[in-house]
Amino acid sequence: MNKKIDLNSDLGESFGQWQMGNDEAILGLVSSANIACGFHAGSPDGILKTLIAAKKHDVTVGAHVGYPDLVGFGRRNMDIASNELTADVIYQIGALQGLAKAAGTEVQYVKPHGALYNTIAHDKRQAMAVIEGILAIDSHLTLVALAGAPLISWAQEAGLNVVAEAFADRAYNSDGTLVSRKLAGAVLHDPELVAKRMLQLVNDGGVIAIDGQFTLINAGSICVHGDSPGALEMAAKVREILEQQGINICGFAGARG
Amino acid sequence: MNKKIDLNSDLGESFGQWQMGNDEAILGLVSSANIACGFHAGSPDGILKTLIAAKKHDVTVGAHVGYPDLVGFGRRNMDIASNELTADVIYQIGALQGLAKAAGTEVQYVKPHGALYNTIAHDKRQAMAVIEGILAIDSHLTLVALAGAPLISWAQEAGLNVVAEAFADRAYNSDGTLVSRKLAGAVLHDPELVAKRMLQLVNDGGVIAIDGQFTLINAGSICVHGDSPGALEMAAKVREILEQQGINICGFAGARG
Amino acid sequence: MNKKIDLNSDLGESFGQWQMGNDEAILGLVSSANIACGFHAGSPDGILKTLIAAKKHDVTVGAHVGYPDLVGFGRRNMDIASNELTADVIYQIGALQGLAKAAGTEVQYVKPHGALYNTIAHDKRQAMAVIEGILAIDSHLTLVALAGAPLISWAQEAGLNVVAEAFADRAYNSDGTLVSRKLAGAVLHDPELVAKRMLQLVNDGGVIAIDGQFTLINAGSICVHGDSPGALEMAAKVREILEQQGINICGFAGARG
Amino acid sequence: MNKKIDLNSDLGESFGQWQMGNDEAILGLVSSANIACGFHAGSPDGILKTLIAAKKHDVTVGAHVGYPDLVGFGRRNMDIASNELTADVIYQIGALQGLAKAAGTEVQYVKPHGALYNTIAHDKRQAMAVIEGILAIDSHLTLVALAGAPLISWAQEAGLNVVAEAFADRAYNSDGTLVSRKLAGAVLHDPELVAKRMLQLVNDGGVIAIDGQFTLINAGSICVHGDSPGALEMAAKVREILEQQGINICGFAGARG
Repeated sequence: MNKKIDLNSDLGESFGQWQMGNDEAILGLVSSANIACGFHAGSPDGILKTLIAAKKHDVTVGAHVGYPDLVGFGRRNMDIASNELTADVIYQIGALQGLAKAAGTEVQYVKPHGALYNTIAHDKRQAMAVIEGILAIDSHLTLVALAGAPLISWAQEAGLNVVAEAFADRAYNSDGTLVSRKLAGAVLHDPELVAKRMLQLVNDGGVIAIDGQFTLINAGSICVHGDSPGALEMAAKVREILEQQGINICGFAGARG
Repeated sequence: MNKKIDLNSDLGESFGQWQMGNDEAILGLVSSANIACGFHAGSPDGILKTLIAAKKHDVTVGAHVGYPDLVGFGRRNMDIASNELTADVIYQIGALQGLAKAAGTEVQYVKPHGALYNTIAHDKRQAMAVIEGILAIDSHLTLVALAGAPLISWAQEAGLNVVAEAFADRAYNSDGTLVSRKLAGAVLHDPELVAKRMLQLVNDGGVIAIDGQFTLINAGSICVHGDSPGALEMAAKVREILEQQGINICGFAGARG
Repeated sequence: MNKKIDLNSDLGESFGQWQMGNDEAILGLVSSANIACGFHAGSPDGILKTLIAAKKHDVTVGAHVGYPDLVGFGRRNMDIASNELTADVIYQIGALQGLAKAAGTEVQYVKPHGALYNTIAHDKRQAMAVIEGILAIDSHLTLVALAGAPLISWAQEAGLNVVAEAFADRAYNSDGTLVSRKLAGAVLHDPELVAKRMLQLVNDGGVIAIDGQFTLINAGSICVHGDSPGALEMAAKVREILEQQGINICGFAGARG
Repeated sequence: MNKKIDLNSDLGESFGQWQMGNDEAILGLVSSANIACGFHAGSPDGILKTLIAAKKHDVTVGAHVGYPDLVGFGRRNMDIASNELTADVIYQIGALQGLAKAAGTEVQYVKPHGALYNTIAHDKRQAMAVIEGILAIDSHLTLVALAGAPLISWAQEAGLNVVAEAFADRAYNSDGTLVSRKLAGAVLHDPELVAKRMLQLVNDGGVIAIDGQFTLINAGSICVHGDSPGALEMAAKVREILEQQGINICGFAGARG
């Protein structure tokens, strides 16, 4: 039986007249699309168009929920009350579910965005608020979370299905954490190298950390980017190398391929 | 068999720290709650609290969709493109459906708000955009519309169930249209008089128009307000008089009473 | 020569159809009005009305700048980049200056609001971003800051005129810091007691701290509230007692009285 | 003495992470920059950067005020109350004045954007609300308006200095109005042709209308675009041809060249 892996990317991030990313191009490369829900990015008409395109490409869709911070693109930490965060998460998932239904598809997972993603990886209060929101709207939704983060067990203990993800273009420490973006070498730029690292991730369950040690990374999905020509090239290379080696690119729920 | 009628009112219109209306009080009087969806009013946490209260009071909930105009409270006409309006409607209904699910209830109807309500009563382009949005997310949702408006037949022809509504505190012309707010006598203030008019509406199918003629108003719901002590008193009087006369106050889908 | 003190309060916090506070009533009691600038509260038309009322009451106006967080009322900490914060501060002050000019008055000071106020009291990075913004638009603007906070010397060293403020309804620790709101006794509710504490503040330069010790509080302004009948009563009592004792209530720049 | 003309273009239209236009490139071509003020486009930090760049290029800056409609980019007509529109205009101009001061420059004119531009060209109620706003904040600001529009005389009668503008890439009817965008030929795409038309405009005071007749267009400024490579090329060609023929490109207030 072939090995398989999910490739996910952020989509639907245009807002009104402002374009961002190349949704059509990246939809030809990934198996899962994290779709903005209007709080950090995405306006209804654009989100709907992206959902229709995802449906056409048979790509699984997930709710890319974020902080209510359009001008900051959801990248600024916010000390938001738990009840507000829970309701914000439900609202965003519900809105995307509605648009997904109109597009003939459905939301299968949730991946928090930006500062919310980073915060709930380790901040239990906000993490539980997000988990509570997901459970309240649909306990069958999968949570996509940072491989190795405490969030994973919190969500599993609360009854959620969780898929851990690795970042294709990021260096790892030997404890399985990401190398801080503030340090040299944190972000990888060579598509060939990145693709081979991801091949190792799928085949061997880990990557070579920044100190040279092989490090286990337990991930069911790989995050790639599509917001620049270079990013698209890297995503294409990752897919090409994986498929060449007989690895099946498909949504973690098996929805594709 | 007893006669019956629905009473509806606008709720969930607080936003963040700003309070509006008295949702708890009005929920004890109406059978249907038009709940703001975040575009003209309502923030997720407050909307969720209102939905939970509506569930507790066994009041049917509907999506009070509006233009994306928070500072104008959705009361300013906007010349919005059809595809944008359709997606805005779906987004709002979906968001409310998500919060309703979390509250243990479900959205059963859609009532457009403010300028959108008035515009689509007669503007076919925008009306069809709203109708298309409702059909795309859930064709079983009922549309609540102004009694006598062209919108009613457009929606019915498109396959929607429609309930026409009368306004308790408004005077009518003898052609069944509302007397313009710009004219003297357009808004009624006497709770007793208003209640008796609504009793006549239910029993005889119409009201005395501003020129003194009895005028047929084909309405399955009556809109009352709850945003001031006077409005609450009027709503209470309408309910009291109707119930005294054996009329059953219940959601038009029969969900209550 | 009589002693004098400034009384300041937050105004202009309505937004569109949502009312907050009682600006007319509080303007009869204070000498300085911290006016919302649209980011955490305030919409242009309402801000303008408040400025016109402040002018009529001969009350000094200041820019109550906040985080860009309307739904959170600027009360949630945001980890905002320095250049963005600086520009946000300039934008808000400029907008208020424009409206003030239209109202026949002018902005004389800046008082950050909510989470921004609390954060920059001790967070030097964000504090310097705010200071830089004020200096960039008008170095003659006074900064109103928490008495005892490190912010005061940072701003003074940068060349700003600073006025420290005390909170009428808050208990103090014997080191001059505010008792945390999480602790019992942090907020005072007795207007008479509060007024006498503020009399002591003006006459003796300090208050009795929560542990019973007299504690120096170096403040040129006292913050009172106007957003509830109780708050208004307290503000009125503070003014009454101070004036009875011959203390002149006037803006710190001497603009009033 | 050389003839002269102003070239203006829309700038500062990025928002947060969303980029729009090529401000640096167009600033090398125009004499006046219409800078977004945050209501339809523009966030404070980006606006400030654009103002600094305009200052560096010695380009005159104006306030590109719009409807409060970020998701619609200010391109949707809004039926906004006069007092609200007046306050919105003051707020936007004030905010831009503040940022301009921080950038070492100052706002010299106002050009309404999008739907507001088109509406006030002929809608007297909204036009007077905008004019009132400009007068209230600074009666020395020039209003840039559509050549031939009734707005021009309304503004002049109210005491404003007005500069009429022509659109480089638009066809004209023989009555001096723009050919509707709904009609074939309304938008011109040939940079050489467009540049020669603008040369004729400056030298002869008019252009050849769509029916072949020479038509007078009384314009002190020409609007060019910079939001695509093709638009930049056209703007560059207009400037090149005009300068080759000895026409001085300078702000209408004489600020440049």
